[in-house]
Amino acid sequence: MSLIEMSHRSKEYEAINNSAQQLVRELLDVPPNYKILFMQGGGLGCFSAICMNLMGRTGEADYLVTGTWSSIAAKEAAKYGKVNMVFPRPETRSIPHPRTWKLSENASFVFYCDNETVDGVEFNYVPETRGVPLVADMSSNIMTKKVDVSKYGIIFAGAQKNIGPSGVVLVIVREDLLGNASKYCPTVFDFAHISKNNSVHHTPTTFSVYVMEKVLQWIKRCGGVDKMAQNSYDKSTTLYNAITNSNNFYVCPIEESCRSRINIPFRVGGANGDDALESKFLEEAEKLRMYQLKGHRSVGGIRASLYNATSVEDVKLLVQFMEEFRKQHGPK
Amino acid sequence: MSLIEMSHRSKEYEAINNSAQQLVRELLDVPPNYKILFMQGGGLGCFSAICMNLMGRTGEADYLVTGTWSSIAAKEAAKYGKVNMVFPRPETRSIPHPRTWKLSENASFVFYCDNETVDGVEFNYVPETRGVPLVADMSSNIMTKKVDVSKYGIIFAGAQKNIGPSGVVLVIVREDLLGNASKYCPTVFDFAHISKNNSVHHTPTTFSVYVMEKVLQWIKRCGGVDKMAQNSYDKSTTLYNAITNSNNFYVCPIEESCRSRINIPFRVGGANGDDALESKFLEEAEKLRMYQLKGHRSVGGIRASLYNATSVEDVKLLVQFMEEFRKQHGPK
Repeated sequence: MSLIEMSHRSKEYEAINNSAQQLVRELLDVPPNYKILFMQGGGLGCFSAICMNLMGRTGEADYLVTGTWSSIAAKEAAKYGKVNMVFPRPETRSIPHPRTWKLSENASFVFYCDNETVDGVEFNYVPETRGVPLVADMSSNIMTKKVDVSKYGIIFAGAQKNIGPSGVVLVIVREDLLGNASKYCPTVFDFAHISKNNSVHHTPTTFSVYVMEKVLQWIKRCGGVDKMAQNSYDKSTTLYNAITNSNNFYVCPIEESCRSRINIPFRVGGANGDDALESKFLEEAEKLRMYQLKGHRSVGGIRASLYNATSVEDVKLLVQFMEEFRKQHGPK
Repeated sequence: MSLIEMSHRSKEYEAINNSAQQLVRELLDVPPNYKILFMQGGGLGCFSAICMNLMGRTGEADYLVTGTWSSIAAKEAAKYGKVNMVFPRPETRSIPHPRTWKLSENASFVFYCDNETVDGVEFNYVPETRGVPLVADMSSNIMTKKVDVSKYGIIFAGAQKNIGPSGVVLVIVREDLLGNASKYCPTVFDFAHISKNNSVHHTPTTFSVYVMEKVLQWIKRCGGVDKMAQNSYDKSTTLYNAITNSNNFYVCPIEESCRSRINIPFRVGGANGDDALESKFLEEAEKLRMYQLKGHRSVGGIRASLYNATSVEDVKLLVQFMEEFRKQHGPK
């Protein structure tokens, strides 16, 4: 009998579910007063779930909008209460300095997106919230760096970038934040309910959890999050160096202090990009079996996503290709 | 590149997504004014989603509670508005006659569970609602019989019983019911939003949809829903006959007029069941590689779930085992 035929209440699935939880706890050094949940509905579902679980306390929350996903999160939050923008959304791809932030007195939580997948903007520090629970969307950089979980109220991440296939969302939540779900919070989004039932109250996406458990084992075998962090540093440094040393043939539009180690957008043929050259770049990359380098449709250009499954060697091949492409198509 | 590594916006996944939709439309003869959605959050998530999409119109809804799942659905609905119980929950496992039903003047919709998975109670007719949109949970009997979709406002089903693995919910919704989501409806549960974005606005459970598409192809190859209906009739008749002809060694507690063709609960050793005999029954069945015959923990006894993947031959083997078990352990 295969895993996908099995009952989610079988002892076989129970073992997988428990092992995956235990691996998350171990790999991220999750303190005992945090619960680990596996949910459905993606990161977008979690945007709503967080509000329905936490916002009731004061009816408002603070949002740090630094790109596409935090912007969508703030819009979703407005359904559930008052949303305070801690700073106006930056016009360039950057993170305003904390001394310019306006945190509210009355926020139930402070939300931010630790790594903006589309925009390529990443925090390299933990936002200071003066005791207000901090909620982090780490969908695109979970397990790519060490995290001090104790500084967070909630960390959540869709599995599909770094730790598994789509269909499961990892939620790490501090126990004292459980039990305040709003009246209209669907049971499937009630963190306390999911926690009490060990993430198997209703049928989970068993295959996704199964594969996630295998990926977490793989991360552990590789040397854990420390090794993934080292890889992420090596991969991103290699690529940013190639961009920096390209005489503006390749241009990364992100402010240096907040460049993502994971999603690296750049233009080909100058700061505004040359559409024809970028198409050519993608076409030739595909011939070398380098796929999905196209920037998100909302921002254009090229985007290299250096998730955990991408090796240092993969990035070296990309950089080598970029050098050759520049020699062929760049200014002589 | 495997499916689970692929972007849900790739042309490869788009083809799978469209093919699965087309197969549902073809197999269930879905009229053109109905949309086919693939969602997340399971049937339980759908209990909430339905209310947040439809209940706003009048603030109330009618529920036909005939077992475990419709009871949970009614409880979930009470979060979102006034729930009218069309009849008191029956004390025996049966469906009260429609002439005893009290439908409300002001219901936004009438909800029922076409087949109660835990209890083994199934409707063999479509409830008449005098024009009020009818909402059916068909999680455990979708594609096991012909359905006149035009009689429904919404049909939904978690895939994991008859049409695929867990992680995807099929929703068939009449177009005119779209666009009325409540203010606090999460975007991932807004049917209009999912429909407008062809079920790929946010990352779907790609693997589950992929396998579902394969299962739908298989149903088509076998001869479509007609063939599955014939199989369901043959399988359930074979098993019920064995129970009926067992001199009350096997007893099915469900009223005859509403016995499920899909989930068939029975007791071993008389109407109240003999715990020791039932344990023995399960143990010996497992030796013959017949698994998961244990009744749901809330009702006990034995339950044979004859989903589409179970063949007529499988049921013949079960019945053969039951005969032998009775000869060995029944009254001489």
